[in-house]
Amino acid sequence: MNPEILEKRFSIEDLAAFSEKVFAVHGFSEEDARLSASLLVRADLRGIDSHGIARLSGYVRLIQAGRLNPRPKLRFESKFPTQGLLHADQAIGFISGSRAMEKCIEMAELYGCGMVAVRNSNHFGIAGQYALMAAEKGLAAFAFTNASPLVAPSNSTSRMLGTNPIAAAFPAMHSRPFVLDMATTTAANGKLEILQRKKEEAPAGWIQNASGKSSTNPDELKKGGALMPLGGETKTGGHKGYGLGSLVDILSGVLSGANFGPWVPPFVSFLPLPQNPVGEGIGHFFIVFRPDGFLEASEYQNRMENWMTAMRNSAKSGGEDVLVAGDPEWQAEEERKRNGVPLHEEVIRDLRLLAEESGIKHSFLS
Amino acid sequence: MNPEILEKRFSIEDLAAFSEKVFAVHGFSEEDARLSASLLVRADLRGIDSHGIARLSGYVRLIQAGRLNPRPKLRFESKFPTQGLLHADQAIGFISGSRAMEKCIEMAELYGCGMVAVRNSNHFGIAGQYALMAAEKGLAAFAFTNASPLVAPSNSTSRMLGTNPIAAAFPAMHSRPFVLDMATTTAANGKLEILQRKKEEAPAGWIQNASGKSSTNPDELKKGGALMPLGGETKTGGHKGYGLGSLVDILSGVLSGANFGPWVPPFVSFLPLPQNPVGEGIGHFFIVFRPDGFLEASEYQNRMENWMTAMRNSAKSGGEDVLVAGDPEWQAEEERKRNGVPLHEEVIRDLRLLAEESGIKHSFLS
Repeated sequence: MNPEILEKRFSIEDLAAFSEKVFAVHGFSEEDARLSASLLVRADLRGIDSHGIARLSGYVRLIQAGRLNPRPKLRFESKFPTQGLLHADQAIGFISGSRAMEKCIEMAELYGCGMVAVRNSNHFGIAGQYALMAAEKGLAAFAFTNASPLVAPSNSTSRMLGTNPIAAAFPAMHSRPFVLDMATTTAANGKLEILQRKKEEAPAGWIQNASGKSSTNPDELKKGGALMPLGGETKTGGHKGYGLGSLVDILSGVLSGANFGPWVPPFVSFLPLPQNPVGEGIGHFFIVFRPDGFLEASEYQNRMENWMTAMRNSAKSGGEDVLVAGDPEWQAEEERKRNGVPLHEEVIRDLRLLAEESGIKHSFLS
Repeated sequence: MNPEILEKRFSIEDLAAFSEKVFAVHGFSEEDARLSASLLVRADLRGIDSHGIARLSGYVRLIQAGRLNPRPKLRFESKFPTQGLLHADQAIGFISGSRAMEKCIEMAELYGCGMVAVRNSNHFGIAGQYALMAAEKGLAAFAFTNASPLVAPSNSTSRMLGTNPIAAAFPAMHSRPFVLDMATTTAANGKLEILQRKKEEAPAGWIQNASGKSSTNPDELKKGGALMPLGGETKTGGHKGYGLGSLVDILSGVLSGANFGPWVPPFVSFLPLPQNPVGEGIGHFFIVFRPDGFLEASEYQNRMENWMTAMRNSAKSGGEDVLVAGDPEWQAEEERKRNGVPLHEEVIRDLRLLAEESGIKHSFLS
């Protein structure tokens, strides 16, 4: 947690109630407003501030621009018992992601596994929470989404892929689930913005300039540069990060009929939509399966617990604990449930404006 | 392709025929010997020299050590229509991997998707070729395996994970399939060995020394160091590579009942097996699904082709072409089918010894 953003703390309940009102005022059904709000602020709770309430006004701008449908009619098509395609009708990603996961879970419970591709959706917040929905029912899951292009393939200067996250969750015996939730870039865009504000240099491997050369200047992204895939330059494995980002785009965009690559629409409503779109909206992809399809549930859970314990107990190289994927987010959840969610002054200002224009009382923001 | 290994060229047919004889002499059935040989040398054909015929004597040593069963009785268990567990009875990974993929393909054809976990197996060569088996039938697939521990988690000095590859393949309309096949480390062990021979430094992010500090000395691995996960140090995203390696170990080892983490047995027969094993042998995991479960087959193939074209045509940053995953291997296949497979002098010597001890004539090696 960055000290600069520890401005003021808010209860997660206040943030959820406020977000729900905002979604409702802008046309969401009561049920969709509640679900969207709770999934939005789950990011704040889990310490992923870039994907939480800081984005609330961004979603409203998309509604106002006619790019996000507050009353979508979702349609689910299925040709085989364990696969389906969800036409999201420009829904907010929280609604389409949840609906897709429900379908995956139903199929996995009956047949062992289930997978759903989603087209014509919008951003869905943090990928990990969809995988977690399955893990909370004792299932294992993957979640993927594509995103607007910021990343250049290896050997290229063009922005062709988004930060395209990979999420996966596995329940254990006693521990909270293993939850991997990672952008396929070296660093997420939010981390660059922090460096820009602080006027600090970026580590090698985060960004490249407009000519495709690795750079440590966090402002390069505004001057025609690009984020680098996980691994950075090819000599440090950047082609692998490019391959992973590609995989996520193929699953989420190519298979679903959504846009892919440079055609994925931007999150911010003031940027124009790409010309000659190759599909509808943005795309997601979900896979759910039963761990007890391979081993007895208790045997699997026990082995998963032992795996976590082995990693956590491995020899430390310094003062930092050895963690497993998801541990930092579980720690943030505990701390923030107790002490509230810290919001940056800029975010608070933005929420106040949003409250005023939406005609919502906001005593907790003053 | 490294110039130092371009010693002498051999036809892929000769290498396959020789490998088949070696497997047969060491107890494989005719059918298993032929299949194993063809999958072994596919690595040589695809330019992944570290996983090809250079490992043939390693497999023989495992048979001689009683760790690889030349006449395995594989047993497939299935509780749900799209999931199964393959007990590999210490088979060579080529046999267990192929059998598992056949089962996945059957299930995917009937239900949309299929997944198989494999326990009690041995190394299976290159992960990508299993995914490719599905892609050659118009299906999409993932393949994973765990491997003996060489990689330290972020913040740790212990070797807890293998180079645990992720492979995925997707067929296209005209192009050869997209085939991602990547170790979840910054660099594979074979690349370090090349640097050791040349007495060159490794780029930052490849290895850490025994205290867990990033090092550029390729010999650190022999002195208690470890390979670093993709991304290297945490500031350059190494925790993500650690998370990916974890994911592969959970799928391949935890879910299957094979060994996981530091208990995965080493490939080389002269190293002792880990004490108190947590499972049987090494583990693999496979997922196959139908692209036409989401879109019409031709629409999907066309979109996949367009995705590839977009990436390949993106602006180049220098002299190198922008490729998609699998392109370098397809290029190697074409070149090596034409000109033969280059083998290093050390490998040729090793094969001659193997031929002599196995009582096999080897005119092509002289």
